[in-house]
Amino acid sequence: MKRVAIFPGSFDPFTKGHEDVVRRGTRIFDKIIIAVGHNTGKSGRYFDLDLMVGKIRETFDDIPDKVEVVVYQELTASLAKKYGANFIIRGLRNTTDFEYENSISQVNRHLNEELETVFLITSQQYAPVSSSIIREVHRYNGDVSDFLPYEL
Amino acid sequence: MKRVAIFPGSFDPFTKGHEDVVRRGTRIFDKIIIAVGHNTGKSGRYFDLDLMVGKIRETFDDIPDKVEVVVYQELTASLAKKYGANFIIRGLRNTTDFEYENSISQVNRHLNEELETVFLITSQQYAPVSSSIIREVHRYNGDVSDFLPYEL
Amino acid sequence: MKRVAIFPGSFDPFTKGHEDVVRRGTRIFDKIIIAVGHNTGKSGRYFDLDLMVGKIRETFDDIPDKVEVVVYQELTASLAKKYGANFIIRGLRNTTDFEYENSISQVNRHLNEELETVFLITSQQYAPVSSSIIREVHRYNGDVSDFLPYEL
Amino acid sequence: MKRVAIFPGSFDPFTKGHEDVVRRGTRIFDKIIIAVGHNTGKSGRYFDLDLMVGKIRETFDDIPDKVEVVVYQELTASLAKKYGANFIIRGLRNTTDFEYENSISQVNRHLNEELETVFLITSQQYAPVSSSIIREVHRYNGDVSDFLPYEL
Amino acid sequence: MKRVAIFPGSFDPFTKGHEDVVRRGTRIFDKIIIAVGHNTGKSGRYFDLDLMVGKIRETFDDIPDKVEVVVYQELTASLAKKYGANFIIRGLRNTTDFEYENSISQVNRHLNEELETVFLITSQQYAPVSSSIIREVHRYNGDVSDFLPYEL
Amino acid sequence: MKRVAIFPGSFDPFTKGHEDVVRRGTRIFDKIIIAVGHNTGKSGRYFDLDLMVGKIRETFDDIPDKVEVVVYQELTASLAKKYGANFIIRGLRNTTDFEYENSISQVNRHLNEELETVFLITSQQYAPVSSSIIREVHRYNGDVSDFLPYEL
Repeated sequence: MKRVAIFPGSFDPFTKGHEDVVRRGTRIFDKIIIAVGHNTGKSGRYFDLDLMVGKIRETFDDIPDKVEVVVYQELTASLAKKYGANFIIRGLRNTTDFEYENSISQVNRHLNEELETVFLITSQQYAPVSSSIIREVHRYNGDVSDFLPYEL
Repeated sequence: MKRVAIFPGSFDPFTKGHEDVVRRGTRIFDKIIIAVGHNTGKSGRYFDLDLMVGKIRETFDDIPDKVEVVVYQELTASLAKKYGANFIIRGLRNTTDFEYENSISQVNRHLNEELETVFLITSQQYAPVSSSIIREVHRYNGDVSDFLPYEL
Repeated sequence: MKRVAIFPGSFDPFTKGHEDVVRRGTRIFDKIIIAVGHNTGKSGRYFDLDLMVGKIRETFDDIPDKVEVVVYQELTASLAKKYGANFIIRGLRNTTDFEYENSISQVNRHLNEELETVFLITSQQYAPVSSSIIREVHRYNGDVSDFLPYEL
Repeated sequence: MKRVAIFPGSFDPFTKGHEDVVRRGTRIFDKIIIAVGHNTGKSGRYFDLDLMVGKIRETFDDIPDKVEVVVYQELTASLAKKYGANFIIRGLRNTTDFEYENSISQVNRHLNEELETVFLITSQQYAPVSSSIIREVHRYNGDVSDFLPYEL
Repeated sequence: MKRVAIFPGSFDPFTKGHEDVVRRGTRIFDKIIIAVGHNTGKSGRYFDLDLMVGKIRETFDDIPDKVEVVVYQELTASLAKKYGANFIIRGLRNTTDFEYENSISQVNRHLNEELETVFLITSQQYAPVSSSIIREVHRYNGDVSDFLPYEL
Repeated sequence: MKRVAIFPGSFDPFTKGHEDVVRRGTRIFDKIIIAVGHNTGKSGRYFDLDLMVGKIRETFDDIPDKVEVVVYQELTASLAKKYGANFIIRGLRNTTDFEYENSISQVNRHLNEELETVFLITSQQYAPVSSSIIREVHRYNGDVSDFLPYEL
């Protein structure tokens, strides 16, 4: 049976840290579905959704069989069922991440017993670079190109 | 002298984890006042305030002498004085909770020297189920009935 | 029914932080039993056990009906049964404390379902003063009198 | 060469904890520039910007050569360059602060290699008093004068 | 290529929490090698090494093709090479675990670039039960049978 | 007045992470005294004390006026007085470090009011490499040369 994992997130933007998790994850899983959350209710994205989906696809065009990019607007547990995925993959950067991910993963397992969340610890060089810090730097015209696996 | 404790929160919604804290708390205190914060200034509740107050009362209708439910819109320290309560009771789920509650409890003691905050650690089975995760699951039509002590 | 709580620890030495927890605890409980752990198997205490028991009794000789000091060498859950105590009281200083106490309290409840652990957060001025730091300062002839509620 | 440090923040309001960091910092640095962030895009301040700048200046009118107050609306890394500052000074209150500051400081060093962030741990008596708790207490007409180094 | 993972530890004793990690891990990996560390230099084990190896084998005698138990006395990175394993699997219980595991995993990747550490978060019901607490309870004749997947 | 800082530790061994703190610290302070703790009472060092002192001196032989290496066996607060140092400098790697350092620094300030502890956050690439992990790897003949600023 093929091992398929969902990598859910808002990816606003998708960072080198995210890329690191996906590439390392392809050694564990046969396929990784990068699921970009499209939350209509919330205050909106900073980076355009379609632009970002394109950039993520571009980032992995060397391994098109291993990575798929989708937009979603539902529970991760439901999305996983739709795609026949039994795994979620997530990166952990620090202890704050840990407690949040702990809660989410336990609830996901409650909603879908087959759904196992697998964690990789973000590589040191990418750990401090969160999407929210990148947005802040970008907002004030700072150079963020070193933190992204593609050109904006 | 009767030992009266306030259990303050937004309870949006009130969860089985909250129920657990109240029931265990009734072994320590003679009376627990569940104080549902009504914050007009903020962005508003997800679950209706009156509905929630009704559901909380229903949850504890087996011990009406031990539990009282009130709505409040003031400092917890002031509310405690009004009800002759010398204690606040709070549940701790994880280290993020701890640091927040630490700050709040020290400030409350500053505002009202008589006011002691007492903590219970949330039972393991309820620890990951925060109100915010329940709202998120409910928003996408996920089944949250296992996390609530009443039917919605 | 009287509310009796155990306050277990090695108290090597008993600090002003410990005194703070006991005095605040006497507002919640009718009686607090300070249980000084006597671990024969381990590497031994820095401060003499009998000396310390005497100093703790001296500290609370203004409230002899509220506080009792015992030496113990068994599971806290068993000790609680022997003394008819349904509560353990513990002070929390920081997040490291929290995770340790979380584990212990869940196991204690497993061993004795009636046994509830109640936490107070250590007052700010005493939070950094752990027994191990006091031993370290004392070992090098530093002045520790400000951290202890009695004279050595 | 003079050692100049930026102390950036929203200071909404400036607290005794902030004052503590600045005064202790003047022993390390020749000059500290208190940089009050003016974020037009966000939801706005609770305390008026001009009022707060005045209050901060008043707080340090005993050491006018050591402390300067400026309003800024750019990256901290750019601000530092403009003022010839090679240091950022920050106070740490707890582990949540630590992880946030860790991220920010690593990104700042990435944007400006000369820029070193130096941390002091907030004095115990001020550690629990965050600006957000003060706003909350003030909103409900609680007395916050003990937490501020000036009169409102 | 078969996906083989090492599950290293001192397992003194092997708990239901460890069993949980192994069973969930067999859904991700084709084979899991449980590697019981035999540290001659240290102060010695509480539970006998051979006894424990036998009990672990017994625990997984329903899936003998998926699980192998070995004793080791070398770097985990070397052990992995010997067994052709490209993965380490570890359970995370709380934030203290996280920081320790973070360090170890980064160093392991430094010693052996092919070696990826994969984390599962320990199921809630097993999270508080560490091996060291079990030893402490057992030392005082407390009942630990609920925490172990085998009879002692 | 010259700004002198003590950098205390057991440095068993001194790592590239330690070197990073010292070099960055020389931009803040005029002189840094690396104080290698010689604890006769404890279980002994893994790396020879004299060897290590020599290696540390060698590491900084490019800046002999800025760095001094001493062995000490007393309270850090007393050592600081002896050398006319008003500062301690310490590196923070993670939240566990933070809570330990918080305690130590508050007690040091209590013992010597003039003594201010200044923290730098360890650079990402060195953060996971603690002295204890290096000892563990070295004990099993792993290659640790990448983690040390000198040859063993």
